[in-house]
This record gives sequence, C-alpha cells and structure tokens, in this order.
Amino acid sequence: MDIIKECATALKSVKEKKPLIHNITNYVTVNDCANIILAIGGSPIMADESNEVEEMVSISSCLVINMGTLNERTVSSMLKAGKKANLLHKPVVFDPVGVGAGSYRNRIAAKLLNEIEFAVIRGNMSEIKSLSGLAVQTKGVDSVADEAGGAEAARGFAAEMNCVVAVTGQTDIITDGQRVCLIENGHPMLKTVTGTGCMTTALVGTYCGAAPDYFVAASAGVATMGLAGELAKKALQENEGVGTFRMRLFDSIYNLTEETIRKEGRMKIE
Amino acid sequence: MDIIKECATALKSVKEKKPLIHNITNYVTVNDCANIILAIGGSPIMADESNEVEEMVSISSCLVINMGTLNERTVSSMLKAGKKANLLHKPVVFDPVGVGAGSYRNRIAAKLLNEIEFAVIRGNMSEIKSLSGLAVQTKGVDSVADEAGGAEAARGFAAEMNCVVAVTGQTDIITDGQRVCLIENGHPMLKTVTGTGCMTTALVGTYCGAAPDYFVAASAGVATMGLAGELAKKALQENEGVGTFRMRLFDSIYNLTEETIRKEGRMKIE
Amino acid sequence: MDIIKECATALKSVKEKKPLIHNITNYVTVNDCANIILAIGGSPIMADESNEVEEMVSISSCLVINMGTLNERTVSSMLKAGKKANLLHKPVVFDPVGVGAGSYRNRIAAKLLNEIEFAVIRGNMSEIKSLSGLAVQTKGVDSVADEAGGAEAARGFAAEMNCVVAVTGQTDIITDGQRVCLIENGHPMLKTVTGTGCMTTALVGTYCGAAPDYFVAASAGVATMGLAGELAKKALQENEGVGTFRMRLFDSIYNLTEETIRKEGRMKIE
Repeated sequence: MDIIKECATALKSVKEKKPLIHNITNYVTVNDCANIILAIGGSPIMADESNEVEEMVSISSCLVINMGTLNERTVSSMLKAGKKANLLHKPVVFDPVGVGAGSYRNRIAAKLLNEIEFAVIRGNMSEIKSLSGLAVQTKGVDSVADEAGGAEAARGFAAEMNCVVAVTGQTDIITDGQRVCLIENGHPMLKTVTGTGCMTTALVGTYCGAAPDYFVAASAGVATMGLAGELAKKALQENEGVGTFRMRLFDSIYNLTEETIRKEGRMKIE
Repeated sequence: MDIIKECATALKSVKEKKPLIHNITNYVTVNDCANIILAIGGSPIMADESNEVEEMVSISSCLVINMGTLNERTVSSMLKAGKKANLLHKPVVFDPVGVGAGSYRNRIAAKLLNEIEFAVIRGNMSEIKSLSGLAVQTKGVDSVADEAGGAEAARGFAAEMNCVVAVTGQTDIITDGQRVCLIENGHPMLKTVTGTGCMTTALVGTYCGAAPDYFVAASAGVATMGLAGELAKKALQENEGVGTFRMRLFDSIYNLTEETIRKEGRMKIE
Repeated sequence: MDIIKECATALKSVKEKKPLIHNITNYVTVNDCANIILAIGGSPIMADESNEVEEMVSISSCLVINMGTLNERTVSSMLKAGKKANLLHKPVVFDPVGVGAGSYRNRIAAKLLNEIEFAVIRGNMSEIKSLSGLAVQTKGVDSVADEAGGAEAARGFAAEMNCVVAVTGQTDIITDGQRVCLIENGHPMLKTVTGTGCMTTALVGTYCGAAPDYFVAASAGVATMGLAGELAKKALQENEGVGTFRMRLFDSIYNLTEETIRKEGRMKIE
C-alpha cells in the first residue's frame, strides 16, 4: 500500500464530500476544532446537549468524542451519541485527553471504552498506555503496555480493541493491529499551542467522514497536522512566535494540496 | 432613506456610546463574539448563569441570544434574560443557529419565539425559513415560507413577527416588514471561518445598543461584516489562508470608518 | 529589593520549572489563558469538573480561579479546588472578574474570599474596591475602599487579607500589604482585546507556580502582559488592528527574555 498516495486521495475525498463532523468536545479548544474542520474542507457540528446529540449524529458522517474537559452533562451526551453512531455504523473517533491524570478521568475513559466501539483512538503515548492499562483492567484484554516498543504496544492495543490506534509523538504511529504507519512530519512548536492534539483528532474525524479505510484516514489526519506544523514554522519571520505560528497552522491546512502531501509527506508502512 | 448614510451614522453612535451588550451564546464562538463587539467599539458581557442574567440585562443596552450550543442551563437563562429585557424595553437580538437541524433545537426556538419579543432575528435563509415554519405551527402566523422570493418571505415573516429580520447570504436581506434593504457586500471566504454568522449577530446587537432604528442597526451590522470580509480578503498575501483571513476580520472592523461604509457600502433600499 | 531583577529571575524559573497551572475559569477566554500559559513556558490544566479538581490541584503548582462566567457547577469546583490547594499549601490566585456588577457575583466573590486563602488577588481598581467592600461586610475587615489613593487602598486591603493584591490600570499597583510595586508598562490597546485581564491573572499564576515570593510573581505577571502590549503595538503595521495585536501578544510573551524585562521594565518599589 502506498500510504502517501492513499492520504492524498483521502484529502481529495474530503474536499469533494465536505463531510459533516459531529464533535462533543472540551471548552478550551472547541473553536479551534471547528475552524480546523472548516480549514480542511469539512463542516463542523459542536452540539453537546444530550437532548439533541442523537439527531446530530444521524445527519453527520463521523462523531468525534474528546474528553478534554469532562463534566457529567457532556459525558452523558458522549455515551448517548456514541451508541447512536455505533447503531448507525458511523465511525466514532476518540481523544482520551489526559487519561491517566486522575481517577475520575480514568473511570470515564474506561466507561466510554466499554460502551462505545471506536473506529480510531488518537492520543499521545502516555495516554494510549494508560488507556490500554484500563482496557486490561476493565475489558479483560491482554496487557500490551509493558511491551518494549511503542509501535508494538500500539499495534497490540489496536488488535485487542479492533480499531485504529494513532499515537502522536516525535514519530507518529498509526496502526489497525496489522498495518503500522510511521510518520516523521511535524515540528516541536506544535506542543507550544494548546489544542494541537484535539485538532489532530478533529482532522482524523474529518478524514474518517470521507474515506472508507480508517487506517488511511487516521494517517492522513495525523500527517496533515504534522505538515501544517512544518509549513507554519517555515513561514515564521523574525520576532514572530507562537501566536503567528498558530494562525499559520490554519493557513497551511486551508492551502494543503494533494501535491504537498505527495511531496512533503514522510510516511511509511512498516 | 439613504441607508448607507444611516449606517455610517450608526457606526458613529457605537463609537460614541460604547454600548454594553449582554450575550447568552454558545461555547464555540463566544470569544470571537466578545472580541468583535470590542473591535467595533462596544463592550461585551457574556454572563449566562440564570442567577445573574436579569441583573446583567439591567445594566446593558442590548441582549443577544444565540442558540449555537443549547443546553438546559443556558436555555433557562435565555428565557429569563429575554423576558427581563422585554420588560425594560431593551432590544433583544436572536440568532437561531441551526434551527431546522433537529427537533430539540426546533422546540427551543419555538419557545423563545413565543415567550420573547425580538427586535431583530438574524439567520441564513434556511434558518429563517425553518423559524418561520415554526411560527406558523406554534404562533398561528400566516405561512410565508413557501412564497417565491427570499426577500418576500423575509418581509412577510418580519411583518408577522413585528420585528426586523436579517437574512444573510450572497445578497443579504434586511427587512422590518415594510422596508427592505439589500446588501451586496461580503466574500465567500466568510463561510470558511466558524462564527462569522454569530459575529454578525453580535455586531447587529452592538448597533442596536446604540442606534434607535433597529432596521438601520441590523443593516449596519450585516454590512459591517460584509465589508470586513472584503477588506480581509483584499489584505491576504500569497500562501495565507483562513487563519490570516480570520485575524484580518478583526483588524478590518477595528479600523472601519464611516467613510469606508460610505465609499464601499453596496446597500440599497428596495 | 531590585524588583526588575527579581522579575527577570522569576521568568528564568518559569522557563526552567515549566510549572503545571490548574485553572478553573470562564468559557470566554479559556483558550487564551491556556495559550498564554504555554507561551510563557508553563503547562495548563483547565479541568473544571468537581469530581476531578482535587486530583488536578494535587499535581499542579498553582491554582487560578477566575469568575468571569460563573455558574453553580463551576463555583462548587472552585470551592473544592481552592480548599484542597490551601490544604496542600499551594498558591491560589483569584481573578474576581466583574465583582460589583451584580448581587450573585458579589455573593460568590464573598464566599470564595471567606472559604479560600488566596496568595494573590488580581483585578482592576473597581473590582478590588468592590471586593474590599465585600470583605468589610462579610469578613469584618477594616474599610479601605474610601481611602484617598489607589495604592493605599490596595495596600490596606492586602494587609487585611494577608495576601498580595495586584491592581491593573494605567499604573499597575502590586502590594503585599507592606511592599508596593508600581508598574508603568502597558498600552491602552490591551483594553480592546477580551481576556487580557484573565491572561494577566493566568501569567501571575504561572509565575506563582515557579517563584517563591508571590509579590515578585504577581509583579512579574503584570509586567509581562504590559511589556507584551507595548511590543505588540510596536510591531503593528499600517491597516493592522486588534486582530493582529492580539496575535502579537502571544508572540511577544513567547519571545520574552530576561533581558527584555531588564531593559524595558518600568517598575519601581515605592
């Protein structure tokens, strides 16, 4: 499989289909997530009231659940929306923000993992390891967290969960339990802006709403943010910093072309 | 009536009076709405707790209700604040975001329409048609949604509701049921940024807080965003995109002068 | 005490320690607060659910409580988190946004003042005077609000409350009841962006998470935003306005060095 070519094609699908993406997310980066979905060519819905999330799922192509700032009200909406999406066979993307940082957060993550079937889970290595530990405890899956390599741990967890796992870091690892895609795009400055993780997940969701292979969709979403980081950094002038960098991320994703993915994408199937 | 001249005068009033605008709005674009009110020269209050909204309405010149991300808590605040504003004869501006997209949203919109008297309702044509259909069902007003032209439908709805209706689209239509103002300002890129509709409504509210004729205020608010879109687009350099465009919207509104409205405004009374 | 030198050293500590700052804040400027903490070199946590705030306080170096958009749910989280921070001897910074604008807001501010020991309280003169009046009523402290000078009022209030009080305005006043620091940095354009007050408080919190003397930390936080305002204004080109200015604030804080504080800081101990 030529993953770079597949990702370029996925971008084309997003532009053509303009998928409607339903997000139940946190109050810190909700605006950024909506704008990043628009920038790549999708259309965002951010409704999070339990009275209406099922209807919103029904008209959307993908549901993104982000647990950045959890509260009782939105957790109940997440569960309702996730189950509805499963029923309708629509992909659900999960961002377990901060899992491992506290028992409430862990309990909710475990509950979501138990009650919803995810198409893609996207987190950093620490989050994915925590989540995989919770799965061992609560779902009885085999432990994978202690295995040597990050890629192996992610692959094992993806296989156990029967979904795509995307681990972002210096080298990003995307795996469906069989295939593993490694991505070298990105820039350390992405860590100095809040919400670049959330936005990556929103991009993954947008690709999932337009591309049938979620392994490709997740790879494309992660690569898109990595490329945007590189392009945003390259455009920075003297005396500019994280404010300008953040703005340029949106510019770069708005202007991203299939050609840029083909030329600048540093992705390989391992 | 020379609507362009009236709008320029309305801008002068905003700069002089610096009206305090109370917003009960959604969590996606709340920061943008506060910043756009500051950019044009008003002063924003974003309090949304039912325990304090009546007091906030009392010290404000206008109330803006935006139903982007509804929830039970803020709906009750909207109702309380709206009734208080009616009692104090302060203008209430309504943005029925996403009405027509689900039954919960429709029920709340109908409830707000029944219990609050609005000075201005601002939406896109699909929202205004949905809202007008709800009014037919719940308030027994004559149906206007099926009439041929958009301007006629809006005019009929405004007359039935006894308020100003502002329909934004390629050509914006503002009407108080008698007068109709058509505005040709704007740029398609406005659709690629989340919240440009919400911000337009916030601008309408700011003008309503400073100008006595809400038909003029609504026209000025809509024209202001249209002009900002044009100016922001014009300022874009190569490789810049939706991130920079969004920033330039705030720059343009901050720098907007009466002269720009007079020279660049493409508005006419039909 | 050479306050400018102390503030430069405090910046160095922030960069070295990268303190984790827990914020319970408002939905208007939450993203800006997270980004400003990252820009200066800290690490933000924005969790506000009462089920998890105690755990989050436990892993953080400082708690910031901002009452911009109060609601019953977050007020209960503020109280729980504040008490936990007191128990763990971690500094709590308070931004009494809009106190004096209504009875609900006043009641909550008084409750927070009664139940939590603050390390720093940051507000404008009107807020600090309102808060000091509430303290007179509810805590039986001596009245200081009617005293002649702003600095004297602030000093008296700080002494009564046994904390640092930071009053931002044309001249900023920071005092621990004994020492008084006056800061002349800043620019009027800071008032045209929503959240510059909240961001200043978030910066104060970040410095408190890294520097042991909260009088210095508060001075450094306030001076940092003042310097950023000056630098952002200086960088503005023709036709740019409040949108660009806002972005440049983040750039300036990201690029702020000890040398800039030493060269451009206009601070003195009175």
